[in-house]
Amino acid sequence: MMHTEGMLKEGALNGKTIIITGGGTGLGKSMGLYFLKLGANLVITSRKLDVLQGTAQEMEKETGGKVLAVSCDVREIDQVESLFDQAEATFGKVDGVLNNAAGNFISPTERLSTNAFNTVIDIVLKGSANVTMTAGKRWIQNKQKGTFLNIVTTYAWTGSGYVVPSAAAKAGVLAMTRSLAVEWAKYNIRSNAIAPGPFPTEGAWSRLLPGDLVKKFDPAKKVPVGRVGEHQELANLAAYLMSDYSSYVNGEVITIDGGEWLQGAGEFNNLEAIPQEMWDMLEASRGKKP
Amino acid sequence: MMHTEGMLKEGALNGKTIIITGGGTGLGKSMGLYFLKLGANLVITSRKLDVLQGTAQEMEKETGGKVLAVSCDVREIDQVESLFDQAEATFGKVDGVLNNAAGNFISPTERLSTNAFNTVIDIVLKGSANVTMTAGKRWIQNKQKGTFLNIVTTYAWTGSGYVVPSAAAKAGVLAMTRSLAVEWAKYNIRSNAIAPGPFPTEGAWSRLLPGDLVKKFDPAKKVPVGRVGEHQELANLAAYLMSDYSSYVNGEVITIDGGEWLQGAGEFNNLEAIPQEMWDMLEASRGKKP
Amino acid sequence: MMHTEGMLKEGALNGKTIIITGGGTGLGKSMGLYFLKLGANLVITSRKLDVLQGTAQEMEKETGGKVLAVSCDVREIDQVESLFDQAEATFGKVDGVLNNAAGNFISPTERLSTNAFNTVIDIVLKGSANVTMTAGKRWIQNKQKGTFLNIVTTYAWTGSGYVVPSAAAKAGVLAMTRSLAVEWAKYNIRSNAIAPGPFPTEGAWSRLLPGDLVKKFDPAKKVPVGRVGEHQELANLAAYLMSDYSSYVNGEVITIDGGEWLQGAGEFNNLEAIPQEMWDMLEASRGKKP
Amino acid sequence: MMHTEGMLKEGALNGKTIIITGGGTGLGKSMGLYFLKLGANLVITSRKLDVLQGTAQEMEKETGGKVLAVSCDVREIDQVESLFDQAEATFGKVDGVLNNAAGNFISPTERLSTNAFNTVIDIVLKGSANVTMTAGKRWIQNKQKGTFLNIVTTYAWTGSGYVVPSAAAKAGVLAMTRSLAVEWAKYNIRSNAIAPGPFPTEGAWSRLLPGDLVKKFDPAKKVPVGRVGEHQELANLAAYLMSDYSSYVNGEVITIDGGEWLQGAGEFNNLEAIPQEMWDMLEASRGKKP
Repeated sequence: MMHTEGMLKEGALNGKTIIITGGGTGLGKSMGLYFLKLGANLVITSRKLDVLQGTAQEMEKETGGKVLAVSCDVREIDQVESLFDQAEATFGKVDGVLNNAAGNFISPTERLSTNAFNTVIDIVLKGSANVTMTAGKRWIQNKQKGTFLNIVTTYAWTGSGYVVPSAAAKAGVLAMTRSLAVEWAKYNIRSNAIAPGPFPTEGAWSRLLPGDLVKKFDPAKKVPVGRVGEHQELANLAAYLMSDYSSYVNGEVITIDGGEWLQGAGEFNNLEAIPQEMWDMLEASRGKKP
Repeated sequence: MMHTEGMLKEGALNGKTIIITGGGTGLGKSMGLYFLKLGANLVITSRKLDVLQGTAQEMEKETGGKVLAVSCDVREIDQVESLFDQAEATFGKVDGVLNNAAGNFISPTERLSTNAFNTVIDIVLKGSANVTMTAGKRWIQNKQKGTFLNIVTTYAWTGSGYVVPSAAAKAGVLAMTRSLAVEWAKYNIRSNAIAPGPFPTEGAWSRLLPGDLVKKFDPAKKVPVGRVGEHQELANLAAYLMSDYSSYVNGEVITIDGGEWLQGAGEFNNLEAIPQEMWDMLEASRGKKP
Repeated sequence: MMHTEGMLKEGALNGKTIIITGGGTGLGKSMGLYFLKLGANLVITSRKLDVLQGTAQEMEKETGGKVLAVSCDVREIDQVESLFDQAEATFGKVDGVLNNAAGNFISPTERLSTNAFNTVIDIVLKGSANVTMTAGKRWIQNKQKGTFLNIVTTYAWTGSGYVVPSAAAKAGVLAMTRSLAVEWAKYNIRSNAIAPGPFPTEGAWSRLLPGDLVKKFDPAKKVPVGRVGEHQELANLAAYLMSDYSSYVNGEVITIDGGEWLQGAGEFNNLEAIPQEMWDMLEASRGKKP
Repeated sequence: MMHTEGMLKEGALNGKTIIITGGGTGLGKSMGLYFLKLGANLVITSRKLDVLQGTAQEMEKETGGKVLAVSCDVREIDQVESLFDQAEATFGKVDGVLNNAAGNFISPTERLSTNAFNTVIDIVLKGSANVTMTAGKRWIQNKQKGTFLNIVTTYAWTGSGYVVPSAAAKAGVLAMTRSLAVEWAKYNIRSNAIAPGPFPTEGAWSRLLPGDLVKKFDPAKKVPVGRVGEHQELANLAAYLMSDYSSYVNGEVITIDGGEWLQGAGEFNNLEAIPQEMWDMLEASRGKKP
């Protein structure tokens, strides 16, 4: 077997309808494609209907599954309500929601306008809240089971310079995840999150850091396992958390980053730079091996 | 000595001007009063100018210090800019900012409108961001040292049902705190946070849970040390973090809750309910003490 | 599909040899059985050879796989070395280690002898360290890939009264997991952990809390999803983390507890006890829905 | 005022007797000296009686306070019991315990013997447990109030390569701190911890990394505030946590590291290396400021 293959048994998501925000491109598209292969119906949504429709056709062709493309600005509650109306009209019900829509500016914080800051909060945090509350109210009203999966970041809990609005917004999404995992469990609604490390997509990284900077700040260098992630690796984890196999995982955020954030966090991990000969000398100077 | 006395040496905040949002009542007022006693100038702000002016007069009378009351809705960047303009006009410069303004609804989440959700995000997260970015840009521009102190909650990282918008917003504030602690340290700007447990104020708790519920959900019962906090205890910690004595504390959130959140979190802490006689029997049944 | 079925594709662990400490009974046995079904060879070990041999026979009969039973006290490095010698002699190499051996006393801490405290540290922390260092040194020496999976608890990071030696020891195992995830990644060795909530086993819970107390402290009551875990749910997660499908998960601890620890941790989760009628009244008293 | 001055009011620790393990040198000595200045009686202990006695004389001379030097190997419960007997005989009672004794090897983990690993566990974790249980049992027996303060590290929760035994042991101490903060609060016993970043001492850092390496791995470079800590800064925080002023802080670990661990942990903090001109260009390429 290979880590780049799908891991779940066939039919693991049979009969489930899953909404993916930001599902037209990048990681959202990759996760959606695997959900389809596992038997799910898919609703993909973003503000760019033409992109969505192209993706939907491509996905249906590849998998034989059903994909509904709906244009929706998640900041607008009316559009979110309409999204769910269309999804229910097409597939009867919604079983899972993958909050994947994101916005980010890589910038020194003092160079950002408060307007820019607020835009990220609106898309990421308010948008996720709009989608989550709309889904939850409907599931509770209909006494129907449901599953949330929210894409966050490792800097949701550590914070990070240069992406501060995104850090604040994603932290909010994580707190919402953990809160509702407890509060809504009685309604048979689960909530989990994934914090992905570097999974390169054409859209995101190169737009944030154009040109030479991409090479200089090669994210693989910061990852203990020495490479960036493959989309299928993320898709495998997402499918597990969206499936009933993970029924007892609730309120959890799972990091899949090769160990990236821990490498920076641990105080003496930079001693990696000491060559073996130096360790030999250090041992010799202590007289013997400890 | 008593834990309800001020702890720092006289003059610990001499010459510093500190802005407190939500400073007209409650914990903000208590912290502000102690800052004044330690030699600081104070700027208090909220949307209720009459309350602020009353508090300012009262504070000045009690301490002999100087207090400027400024009406400001922290959601409006123009009003925040004006707040800083007035503070600088009165005191020359601002040295510290205490982000203390809060909004909350205690409610099952499915009963909230998305509008209510967003209002809390706006006041708590966007409001704190507006104040923080305004202060930071001015400090950086003027090459001036500065200190942020942000009031969050323990459920900023654990989440909590029934206060989900507040959980999301406070988590965002915490992430912002940790992010800027690193990014803006080079400008001589520190950022820290406090997560207070139950410190009763007239305004907050009784408004959230009127009548009998206040007694039924007596917060002291959930606290290992068996009581709620005294305002001076919080003021002592806040003054430490606002003073130069904490110059090497940066990016930290300090919990002051008597152990409340840990008591709920630890899996077997509920065995507290087992009486001593039962432990005697359990030991006897094992034949001897372990 | 059902959450109590195996989730991974057939052959997901084909050709891998996995050592499980404490593998003769309980959760260790359940995880081992699923590893076997997925194609792994198994080495199970504990201090009770007769129990191990019975389990090994039972497992082989059920799955047609190969199981080696080795008596080993993980506190003794010589016995650990011998364990690996036998495993390598039988299967050629070892690919994964599941540190699952545990010891615990449920007791008020002041009733424990320091000797009892130390015994738990020795079995859980030193035992895991002995097994981990033995495996790691051999993998590094042989330039062979390897995977660690360590069973910890949610109170490894929150702490918990009444199980303090176990809390200290499991916290140590978790820190070791995260440390080596970074340090040994360059040798192609991954390290992860699982923190299970209540997964009842005959051996553990009823021995710790005999008789009526088991009912009084029914762990399902503390779990948002309203039930204890099924062994296959843990086995699914463990198999994922032991397989190459999780190649990009490194240094992570995954909690599978239905949300138990978060329910206790979140400050206002106890408002669950407020009936709907009361919420209606609270809303009415505020004049309108927020 | 200066951050290198003592911060608490005179007499803040009047009448308290505090035991410091590892109190003869380094940070333990610095904290002890400040406790003395604040009115405490001191008991310092380590395995080196001559060093202790020298320190005791020096401290008494400088402060006019009383210092008892007791030789004690904290790994031996008999010696720990004797330590408390002597402390009680001299000062009547013990009020606080500062678990500060440490042991560490900086080394690639695969180069360590399991014996070396276990030695660190014994000194740091078992030693702290021995001292803690001895103090706790006496305080509970005598119905006397008490305060624990334990020195841990930031890598107690992040882990760190190259100091793995210390990471495991300190994580254990942290879990013990949080566990007993809850369990023993009913006996009027508080427990807290401090996680210091780089506070250079002659004994420690230069011994761990001799010669040129000290310069190459200058810890100040990794700290956002751009410097290592001053001993008085740590002493101020320790005195606060040992005093009654912190009566409502319980189960908390306070990090004082200038932001060091967060700087490494936050995913995009390394963008610090991008020069301002580059940010200008990035903005220009986006057409306008966000």
